[in-house]
Amino acid sequence: MSLTAAEISYYERFAERLADAAAVAIQPYFRAQLAVDDKGDAAIAGRRYDPVTIADKAAERAMRELIQAEHPDHGILGEEEENVAGSSPLSWVLDPIDGTRAFITGLPLWGTLVALNDGNRPVIGVMNQPFTGERYLGTPAGAWRNGAALRTRACASLAQARLMCTSRDIFDTPERLAAFDAVAAEVQLARFGGDCYAYCMLASGFVDVIIEAGLQPYDVQALIPIIEGAGGRMTAWDGGDAQQGGAILACGDPALHAQLVERLKHLA
Amino acid sequence: MSLTAAEISYYERFAERLADAAAVAIQPYFRAQLAVDDKGDAAIAGRRYDPVTIADKAAERAMRELIQAEHPDHGILGEEEENVAGSSPLSWVLDPIDGTRAFITGLPLWGTLVALNDGNRPVIGVMNQPFTGERYLGTPAGAWRNGAALRTRACASLAQARLMCTSRDIFDTPERLAAFDAVAAEVQLARFGGDCYAYCMLASGFVDVIIEAGLQPYDVQALIPIIEGAGGRMTAWDGGDAQQGGAILACGDPALHAQLVERLKHLA
Repeated sequence: MSLTAAEISYYERFAERLADAAAVAIQPYFRAQLAVDDKGDAAIAGRRYDPVTIADKAAERAMRELIQAEHPDHGILGEEEENVAGSSPLSWVLDPIDGTRAFITGLPLWGTLVALNDGNRPVIGVMNQPFTGERYLGTPAGAWRNGAALRTRACASLAQARLMCTSRDIFDTPERLAAFDAVAAEVQLARFGGDCYAYCMLASGFVDVIIEAGLQPYDVQALIPIIEGAGGRMTAWDGGDAQQGGAILACGDPALHAQLVERLKHLA
Repeated sequence: MSLTAAEISYYERFAERLADAAAVAIQPYFRAQLAVDDKGDAAIAGRRYDPVTIADKAAERAMRELIQAEHPDHGILGEEEENVAGSSPLSWVLDPIDGTRAFITGLPLWGTLVALNDGNRPVIGVMNQPFTGERYLGTPAGAWRNGAALRTRACASLAQARLMCTSRDIFDTPERLAAFDAVAAEVQLARFGGDCYAYCMLASGFVDVIIEAGLQPYDVQALIPIIEGAGGRMTAWDGGDAQQGGAILACGDPALHAQLVERLKHLA
């Protein structure tokens, strides 16, 4: 389904309202002492500890209620509740708190992710960080941080590149971990942690490469329009569509992206 | 030298003025595209890339000028310039940007560290993060974030603990790295990155353990009064004085600290 500019503009605003509703639900819980459950799907995600907070659930509920009240025909894919199939091709892809481990350790590197998928691809993405007061937005027309346009930086050489990755534990096969480590050994600077915030730093031109694996659709869909709107590339390791998650490669400079696809494509 | 309560109060305010001066010097450079030099002391620090920015140097200069103007008898130990020996036992220990790698990648996890050492130990510590608007202060009377009192949380069991560490690359011997990895394998959650910000999250009760090595006096002295003022312990791996840096162990719960000293003391 192809959206008009007016529709894009309307849904941008609606995506921001969803992020606002999530922020209201989350704010009382950030840096409070929380009960943290272990979801117990460690084997599936390749992670041994996957905390879910009250805040996560409350924020997704708030977003779902707003969608169901105003766009009951739209589909919903979220981290915390069952998928809702819509009669419209449009669907919302929600991660109320991407970076729950940052969240529970008090670090302001988590974010609320909201994407609108038109049935083919995510066309609008929002990453909202209410503690720092930052909202990143991507659309077919570009990408912005609090209204200021974002551009990735030129960096065609791995030796000059700044690499980020949430954690080495994210790699779900020994071959993928080894491939990541080999790339990490060649960069100027490698830094762990960051979750969705790292992708926004890439869109802003401060980070050049992100290599991850084991991601879910709700981890990535909001970030694709932000990175591509800023001039970067975000794909699967073989250069294919990133929207289903899995093994993901994001680069600020398309030339560096092409080089890394050559190195990583056999492991996609 | 033992300071009176009135002197502590006066120097608290002076330490905050130093942090303010650093913030003014730094602010134009955060999230700007910087020229980054490699100091080339990678072998010493056990790190292969140690960026120093214009901001780092400008902020330390601003703090040194304020000290030399108002307290020319005080000593100064800072990251970027030579030590100044004072005629007073009091000295200022300065790290204008702790977490330069966070800084250059755009992450708001760096901070300006200011400590006042009374000749025996750091008695006042400030960690200032101007982007998030957070100021952490520790004195013999307690610890605060923007004026609100901080307390570490109770967590006597490693299995329940949240561990942070700036990077596994920080460990300067294979034995220390192995000891860190063994502890990290037992905790509930391990997270990398954070620099001084992680220590403030420990003082705030969101992180339970930090284990690092290869630290300098200016990396640690401001953080000791913050952590101890919040009820935590910050020492060398053998439980001894942390103020000279090196291999550092910080815990929110003194009982957990005692357990970990038993495990780590032979590597101190």
